[in-house]
Amino acid sequence: MTTDSPAPRAPYDPDNIFARILRGEIPAHRVYEDEATLAFMDVMPQGEGHTLVIPKAPARGLLDADPASLAALMASVQRVARAVKAAFAADGLTIFQYNEPAGGQTVFHLHVHIVPRRDGVPLKRHEGGMADPALLAQHAARIRAALEAGEG
Amino acid sequence: MTTDSPAPRAPYDPDNIFARILRGEIPAHRVYEDEATLAFMDVMPQGEGHTLVIPKAPARGLLDADPASLAALMASVQRVARAVKAAFAADGLTIFQYNEPAGGQTVFHLHVHIVPRRDGVPLKRHEGGMADPALLAQHAARIRAALEAGEG
Repeated sequence: MTTDSPAPRAPYDPDNIFARILRGEIPAHRVYEDEATLAFMDVMPQGEGHTLVIPKAPARGLLDADPASLAALMASVQRVARAVKAAFAADGLTIFQYNEPAGGQTVFHLHVHIVPRRDGVPLKRHEGGMADPALLAQHAARIRAALEAGEG
Repeated sequence: MTTDSPAPRAPYDPDNIFARILRGEIPAHRVYEDEATLAFMDVMPQGEGHTLVIPKAPARGLLDADPASLAALMASVQRVARAVKAAFAADGLTIFQYNEPAGGQTVFHLHVHIVPRRDGVPLKRHEGGMADPALLAQHAARIRAALEAGEG
C-alpha cells in the first residue's frame, strides 16, 4: 500500500530504558527471551503479573516497527500471554500498546503490555508506584515456570 | 514452546457480530480489507476515529489465534494505524486488545482497537453511546482517503 512510511515524531533514542535492559545495562525481572524479543515484569504494575514484551530491533512504536519484527513481537506476546494467564489463573487479559505521549507512551521503545485480569477487579493506575522487587521476582518465576510447563 | 494451547474459556461463536459483519449480514463503516483482515469504525468510539481491525479467520481472542492470522492482523493494524493517525492529525495512538469479559471483551471475535489521541484529551468510555452513523461514514472516508494517499 505504501513505500514511504510517515516518520515518527522523534527519532529512536538508543539510551531509552528498554534499550538499556536489552543491552544488560539495567536489570529486569525477565520471563522470556528469543532471538527477536524479550519479556519482563513491568515495575509499575497495573495488576499482579503485568508483563511487557519488546522487540530487540529498535523501534520507537508501532508505526516505525519493521513488519518482521512486529510479527515476531506478537508471536511472543501470544506465547507469554498464555503463560501469564495460566500463572495467575486469570479470567481474562487486557493488552495495551501506547504510541507517543498523547497515546500514553512513557518509554520510547515499542512495547506491549499484558495485564492479567480477574472478574470484578479494576485496573490499577500505571503510575501507582514501584512494586516490591522481591514480589516481581516471584511473579517472573511463576511465569517462567508456566512456560516451562508448556503453557506458552 | 508448546503444541497444546490452553483451550479458550468458551468456543468460538460464529454468530458473533463481527462474524456477521465479515459475512456481510450486518453493515459496517469499512476502511480497509485484504485477504486476511478487515478494518471498520467502532460504533461506540472512545475518541474520534476509533477503528477496529479483525482477522477473517475465526478466533475468539489473542490466545486461540492462528500465528499466521495474528501476523497478518498486526500488519493491517500497523497500516491502518498510520492512516488513522494521518487522517485525524493525531498526536499519538492507543492500541487496546481485550480478552474475555474480565479483560474488557464484549464481542467474542479477536479485534484490535486503534484510538487516535490528542495531547491533553482523555479517552471517552467505550460504553459512551452509539456514534452518529453519518459522522462514522465521514470518518471512514477520511481514513480510506489517507490509505489511498499512501499513508498506510
